[in-house]
Amino acid sequence: MEYTLLAPGPTPLPPSVSEILARPMIHHRTETFSKAFYSCIEKLKKVYRTETSDVLMVTASGSGGMEAAVVNLLSPGDKALVCVTGVFGDRFVKLLRAYGLDPIVISTELGRALDPDKLKNQLLMFPDVKAVFLQHTDTSTGIVNDVKTIANVIRDNSDALIVIDAISGLAAEELQTDAWDLDVVVAGSQKGLMAPPGLAFFCISPNAWKAVDEARLPRFYFDWKALRFAAEKGQTPYTPAVNVVFAQEEALRLITAEGIENVWKRTSELASFARAEVKKRGWNLFAKDPANILTGIVMPEGTDSQAVVSAILAEDNISIAGGQASLAGKIVRLAHMGYIQKADVERGFSALEKRISITTT
Amino acid sequence: MEYTLLAPGPTPLPPSVSEILARPMIHHRTETFSKAFYSCIEKLKKVYRTETSDVLMVTASGSGGMEAAVVNLLSPGDKALVCVTGVFGDRFVKLLRAYGLDPIVISTELGRALDPDKLKNQLLMFPDVKAVFLQHTDTSTGIVNDVKTIANVIRDNSDALIVIDAISGLAAEELQTDAWDLDVVVAGSQKGLMAPPGLAFFCISPNAWKAVDEARLPRFYFDWKALRFAAEKGQTPYTPAVNVVFAQEEALRLITAEGIENVWKRTSELASFARAEVKKRGWNLFAKDPANILTGIVMPEGTDSQAVVSAILAEDNISIAGGQASLAGKIVRLAHMGYIQKADVERGFSALEKRISITTT
Repeated sequence: MEYTLLAPGPTPLPPSVSEILARPMIHHRTETFSKAFYSCIEKLKKVYRTETSDVLMVTASGSGGMEAAVVNLLSPGDKALVCVTGVFGDRFVKLLRAYGLDPIVISTELGRALDPDKLKNQLLMFPDVKAVFLQHTDTSTGIVNDVKTIANVIRDNSDALIVIDAISGLAAEELQTDAWDLDVVVAGSQKGLMAPPGLAFFCISPNAWKAVDEARLPRFYFDWKALRFAAEKGQTPYTPAVNVVFAQEEALRLITAEGIENVWKRTSELASFARAEVKKRGWNLFAKDPANILTGIVMPEGTDSQAVVSAILAEDNISIAGGQASLAGKIVRLAHMGYIQKADVERGFSALEKRISITTT
Repeated sequence: MEYTLLAPGPTPLPPSVSEILARPMIHHRTETFSKAFYSCIEKLKKVYRTETSDVLMVTASGSGGMEAAVVNLLSPGDKALVCVTGVFGDRFVKLLRAYGLDPIVISTELGRALDPDKLKNQLLMFPDVKAVFLQHTDTSTGIVNDVKTIANVIRDNSDALIVIDAISGLAAEELQTDAWDLDVVVAGSQKGLMAPPGLAFFCISPNAWKAVDEARLPRFYFDWKALRFAAEKGQTPYTPAVNVVFAQEEALRLITAEGIENVWKRTSELASFARAEVKKRGWNLFAKDPANILTGIVMPEGTDSQAVVSAILAEDNISIAGGQASLAGKIVRLAHMGYIQKADVERGFSALEKRISITTT
């Protein structure tokens, strides 16, 4: 039975992307590499919907990218506000604390997007907030935040930088870096961007660069100025994940050839289909503000979601995901972003239906 | 003309390693991934020559691995000693300064290995040194340090931790973690380990773990305790470079099947051949204490080494490297580690001979 990958990252690779991974290794201090590097940056700008921000890359997991956003923007004693809609908001909290900062935290009920009014109240209460950290989509709960409205609320009520973790949302859900006036948008190669894991990306506004000049948290590997200095020559400061860069270039070629609005539309349609599949079986969606990247489904009383995930992998050769942290055992998550096809999602639902009926009878 | 990769990292991939890179992506929170993860760790222990140290991995360039060694071992105000034999020793100095530390620096003449007596004097002068940072091999100058003797000198004269950057030396030059009593050995996937760039490795002694407990420099993504906690379940805390892990497993299978002593011997023989090729053409080796991983060759007066490197790439489709930092323009570097074959090295020398005679007449 062929393997079907429906976990929320890494996502399946298009065949032409896989093929490029197997090409012979080349030296990165060459024009051939720089050409692929520039091509990635140019195409990523289209995906980020920016003309005014810089795009940079570093070899790391998405969480390394989140750390970079923290250390390049803040100084000891700075006030930061973190909007927690699941595990990944918590990650920003842990990150800030690891660097000695004491963030203000706004938590939503799990499965809910951030309430912009709640954020407004906090911004008015703490006028000296230096940066707001927020997920575009949170894969742990399957929600999408209304980043456009939230960014407006921040601009109208604060001088804070707007830092968006779009690791799982970029190239899947609508995101407009320039039009929504976002300062920093972090992304990763392995979700909507359809490349293997190994690269984190940053989109950095002129406004954010001013903050970088003043930021005093220690940094070396993740230092954006060093990354920018090398990027001007089509290079990275340290040996990058060379074949992931070439794979990413090909994946971005596919994405920009399709057109980013079409990618959003396709992902949205597949998400609607997935939600209808949930509804028609009488199951419940976990998210009240569901994202298009994945669907979280509440398990029937008495069914351990992790057992369902394990059984589906063992019996059907399909990877879906269970719940994280406090949701462990309670929900399953089935992704439909990037190169995931409708037929894959259908296969996932069939397996899920079979497994749940076995487990609950 | 087929491309020949003789730059000192990334190095060429064995065909079976390339092939694995093109396999379909899988989810990392699975037994299949954990099996590959454990297999890498088990085989890396053989390559590191350790039974008592822990081996961990993180998705990053080697320089990220160097940063991890700094932030997991030290606290603000700690005294550290850096032995500088080229660009990569300088990198430790910059890293320590980025974290607010003021390292003691011992620099050797470029092309020379560290003089153990010089180190001994410094250790006696500064009895409170917490850690000594040192390259096993420095690819910028092509030297190899006598790590065995140096580690003895450190143990006999200090309580300092012994931190070795073996990013370019591991699985190429002899290194004995247990027998030489090394505390931390950093490595990278893309040199002697014959996998694509993207993973950094650490070998951490029980003695080093005690220091980790006390170390107060800030860290999150590179935190060894988080890496160890996940590693106990065959996992990484954050989405790893999945297909690099599978590629690394295959490369390690090849290395351990050959036997690490045989790998050292083969690399040493190829290095002897390369040095003889230099000598028979009347050229000069740059390193007075040459490593087996690569050969640095001094260019004749009036020949710009970068022009030679560019011409050989353009005309012969061979990647060699020029000099870094103060050696830019002065030397070329030709690697012979990992999967580089004798025929590749021969091709490199033929091209070099042709190019140098053109440039100097």
